Amino acid sequence: MRRYLESRQADLRLFLDDVHDPYNLSAIYRTADAAGLFYIDYARKGDHAVRPRKDVVQGSHRWLKIEKIPYESRLEHLRSLMDAGYRIVATTLSNEAAVYTEIDFTRPTVLVMGNEKDGVSPEVAALAHRHIVIPMHGMARSLNVSVATAVILYEAERQRREAGMYDRPSLDKETMETLIREWALRDGIVRKSRGRIAPNQTNQGGMIWPDCPKM
Amino acid sequence: MRRYLESRQADLRLFLDDVHDPYNLSAIYRTADAAGLFYIDYARKGDHAVRPRKDVVQGSHRWLKIEKIPYESRLEHLRSLMDAGYRIVATTLSNEAAVYTEIDFTRPTVLVMGNEKDGVSPEVAALAHRHIVIPMHGMARSLNVSVATAVILYEAERQRREAGMYDRPSLDKETMETLIREWALRDGIVRKSRGRIAPNQTNQGGMIWPDCPKM
Repeated sequence: MRRYLESRQADLRLFLDDVHDPYNLSAIYRTADAAGLFYIDYARKGDHAVRPRKDVVQGSHRWLKIEKIPYESRLEHLRSLMDAGYRIVATTLSNEAAVYTEIDFTRPTVLVMGNEKDGVSPEVAALAHRHIVIPMHGMARSLNVSVATAVILYEAERQRREAGMYDRPSLDKETMETLIREWALRDGIVRKSRGRIAPNQTNQGGMIWPDCPKM
Repeated sequence: MRRYLESRQADLRLFLDDVHDPYNLSAIYRTADAAGLFYIDYARKGDHAVRPRKDVVQGSHRWLKIEKIPYESRLEHLRSLMDAGYRIVATTLSNEAAVYTEIDFTRPTVLVMGNEKDGVSPEVAALAHRHIVIPMHGMARSLNVSVATAVILYEAERQRREAGMYDRPSLDKETMETLIREWALRDGIVRKSRGRIAPNQTNQGGMIWPDCPKM
């Protein structure tokens, strides 16, 4: 758990601007977890939260700080991140768009991915410091949003890995200790209420174990 | 159509070793098309071909050379590609596995992706020149196969783009002319039989147009 937290890239955040398909959201959480992210914010038109699909997300969402931002507050939210020193990088086709590999992802960055149908909203695109695109050499006009997110996050992963950033904790010590306590409590409660104990897997904390039979 | 063919990376091939989920296969075709691939081979246990899901593949499969290889002939097929100068690079966890970004994808390469559950089969893994992995920093043990394929193909795209390989045709001229004739014929037939003419979109050949109403 500690090693997991020490590898988190606290200053590489993801913001999902009205992505609403549960399959895509779940695939994005799983990839973001694998690429070392920790903070994911999503804004949705409409009130209800999106429940991840268990078979796709494989428990990853339980180890990420996923926050639902009210749709009408999302610009304010992004502005506060800008004030904190983040660059807002939005995946959106425009005249000024750079190829995503030209971006320096070792800097504190919020990657913004847009809605499946309409992409990043014009208001968010207008706010962003940079627009980026993924080169498309084929007949298809676009990539699936979960695929596009994976391609960009793993370019960021490549840059940060080469810069040794996975070997230096970026979450502060206090946050880590708090999380470890919270998760230990959560998993204790989960186990107790379900009457489930998996003694040979305790070192994995509260993960959903894909190899175990479903309860 | 010609520009499309001129950008194809004929010597970067994909081999799918018993990937069988239609959603994953369709997502892989769409990404492979976008990354500039042309030749995709897949071997499946069992006889039947996998039909792509239209909503996911968005017509990409119509512009790729997708070949089904009998499962029991797949080693022979890969050996013939090795004899033709290809390096076989299999995504598989082993002691010798390199991180995928260490591979020189500008060389003639067959990327092998494995089955959703079991990965690349041991026989194919034993045949491969190199094993590769994608770094996983999170709690999830694996990436979805279509996401993993996208991450690796776009690393190959990055390397080949930086080497200017999308500006140099790699399909030979005769193959291109044959394909252009075949596709023109195919699309002519499609249009005639459906009584459909889309005059303002004729320069896009036989694409499935996502913005047009379904016929």
